[in-house]
Amino acid sequence: MAHLQRKESPVLRIGIAGLGIAGSSIIPAFLKHPNVQLSAAATRSKERREKFASDYQAETFHSIEELCQSSSVDAIYIATPTELHTEHVLLAAENKKHIIVEKPMAITLEDADKMIEAAEKNGVVMIVGHSHSFEPPIRKIREIVRSGELGEVRMIHNWYFNDWIYRPRTPEELDTQLGGGVTFRQGSHQFDIIRLIGGGLIRSVRAMTGVWDLTRPTEGSHTVFLEFESGAAATAVYNGYDHFHSTELTYGISEGGPVVSTDVYAKSRRTIDQVGRIEESQIKSLAGYGGSRAKQYDHAENHHPFFGLTVVSCEKGDIRQSPNGLYVYGEDKRYEIALPAAATGRDAVIAELYDAVYNDRPPVHDGRWAKANLEVCLAVLESSKQRKEIYLNYQTAVTD
Amino acid sequence: MAHLQRKESPVLRIGIAGLGIAGSSIIPAFLKHPNVQLSAAATRSKERREKFASDYQAETFHSIEELCQSSSVDAIYIATPTELHTEHVLLAAENKKHIIVEKPMAITLEDADKMIEAAEKNGVVMIVGHSHSFEPPIRKIREIVRSGELGEVRMIHNWYFNDWIYRPRTPEELDTQLGGGVTFRQGSHQFDIIRLIGGGLIRSVRAMTGVWDLTRPTEGSHTVFLEFESGAAATAVYNGYDHFHSTELTYGISEGGPVVSTDVYAKSRRTIDQVGRIEESQIKSLAGYGGSRAKQYDHAENHHPFFGLTVVSCEKGDIRQSPNGLYVYGEDKRYEIALPAAATGRDAVIAELYDAVYNDRPPVHDGRWAKANLEVCLAVLESSKQRKEIYLNYQTAVTD
Repeated sequence: MAHLQRKESPVLRIGIAGLGIAGSSIIPAFLKHPNVQLSAAATRSKERREKFASDYQAETFHSIEELCQSSSVDAIYIATPTELHTEHVLLAAENKKHIIVEKPMAITLEDADKMIEAAEKNGVVMIVGHSHSFEPPIRKIREIVRSGELGEVRMIHNWYFNDWIYRPRTPEELDTQLGGGVTFRQGSHQFDIIRLIGGGLIRSVRAMTGVWDLTRPTEGSHTVFLEFESGAAATAVYNGYDHFHSTELTYGISEGGPVVSTDVYAKSRRTIDQVGRIEESQIKSLAGYGGSRAKQYDHAENHHPFFGLTVVSCEKGDIRQSPNGLYVYGEDKRYEIALPAAATGRDAVIAELYDAVYNDRPPVHDGRWAKANLEVCLAVLESSKQRKEIYLNYQTAVTD
Repeated sequence: MAHLQRKESPVLRIGIAGLGIAGSSIIPAFLKHPNVQLSAAATRSKERREKFASDYQAETFHSIEELCQSSSVDAIYIATPTELHTEHVLLAAENKKHIIVEKPMAITLEDADKMIEAAEKNGVVMIVGHSHSFEPPIRKIREIVRSGELGEVRMIHNWYFNDWIYRPRTPEELDTQLGGGVTFRQGSHQFDIIRLIGGGLIRSVRAMTGVWDLTRPTEGSHTVFLEFESGAAATAVYNGYDHFHSTELTYGISEGGPVVSTDVYAKSRRTIDQVGRIEESQIKSLAGYGGSRAKQYDHAENHHPFFGLTVVSCEKGDIRQSPNGLYVYGEDKRYEIALPAAATGRDAVIAELYDAVYNDRPPVHDGRWAKANLEVCLAVLESSKQRKEIYLNYQTAVTD
């Protein structure tokens, strides 16, 4: 089948910039798409280049610049550190490559604007992701909300309690100025989920962030109130300090899909207490491409990811994730919608790029959408600092 | 033991004004307290008067005024409709009776002031309750927070999804102008829980309420963001439209203590759809004193009530209710604190009054505390209407 389709439809050749966790996690989705070819990667690690070339019979480069100039790629997946996204998006766009850039797209609205302009000026598609709003359960909630069968959506709530702050981190992940902390890195998922379900147009933000462990001096928690233009309200609560885990409320199912063990309490915090910062960066790097800690999800055996506990209230019913899809609490009955676990959020990322490039389907997660998410992240930080409500200016509606 | 203590300590003779659900629910707590004597009740129902007189060898009255003038009572428990609280508190205070008044104490800050002044001028104690912050698990959370063993409290979150709007209701319960709707009647519990745990001093409120079923035209939902002076943040989410129930997240344990059945979906909503408003008031009245629907909790066999799902985050640990007490998620371990279910929140109400009258112990839930809770309720309604943050002026600290 895949071979047949390849003959009929154009092939999109994609190169990966950066083979850390994000860069390697997307690979199965690229391999799975019938009309996408994984053709190159750039990384400073010689070891990773050699392994990648051998694994995929693909080109490898030391620099992102060389990758962007290669005539063997039509699109670049940019999975470099956040503070380099703008530079690398501009490089890719100027070389007429379509783009997927990891979230958060940037740390300032000015940089986001530069990226959007570069993509538009050069006539390339730019998608921002993977984020958890690409996941099939979240897309399905949006579909139900949009259908109107449960009336208007009025409340969207997400709680996520986990060990984020104590997982092995690179220095920039623990520095808010470089896009670190849970508001930039995890809020970007929560706000994306909430905006997608609620239609996108947030009116204002009131929030309080928390930096509770000065040895890891960035946001490790936040409490966020969002109001949509429509009057719908949302909250996003995050606590990454490795005490209570909200998997206790989500059937034990984690962000990656599998059921997680809670046999060992506070494992991440206690582990990280025992290693130095250099060693920590090394441990983190082992989770990247080819590393001994790289995760190999066999997604078909797992569940869809739970990015914490999400409950959505419409006027005539509520929706939340079930172990195998969604529970819909309607007027007369509660029922489950099964969603096959084989289709993943990362599959949706590459499909969104492909369909935008070859099938004229406007992407949901384009640069303006992602700039609007970034605006929410920045407003959360600002609201917390100023202790007041912040009104937004660059929100965009979901294109569905 | 009870008899011995009665001889040593003064006896507080209490009369009940109004024998609806609140008035009859408190009776077991009055009977249990070793130094309290249930000595009178006032109700317009001849049937209830006769049953009460026979059950407790107590005086009965047709009017609250007569009850307040009786020389056989030292204190009055006022469980009349909210819009009559001010009048009845003034009557009791002028007759030098100590007071317990049901929450919400009033619907305006002016009325709350009148009640506080009347109690102070006449030298009587006024307690407002029962509210769910009297419950032992909530008091225990406060004790842990106050001890500082988990560091500063930074986030307090409560979700409650249930069938409130579709339970049998009196007309005033469905009229916001008369103190109806979930913000006045149930928010008053949530905000009381949150304020008690967080120390009491709320700085501002941002909220959105929802009226989603125009056949029951009062608030049936709300989303509330609260910021304490300390910078701690809290959220209170309520949805009473009988779709998803948060008992799914609280071990099936309900507000009353027992594990509830979820075999029949949307039972309350579908039942109420079939009865008229007059019939509905009659059904409600059957849940009052002596009625065929009056609840008889054998509390010792049950759990402590779960007023929805509450999770409290301190800098160094989280706390939430367990089936038998609390789970504390500390730095090194998660452990459970067992709390005997025999002691109830309503026991704490009468103990707080007794100790204030005879043991010089300042009550937590006094008039100023309750006025501060009312201020939060009003700010929630106002924030929702004006769609902006509301700053508070009458908050009081917990006296512990």
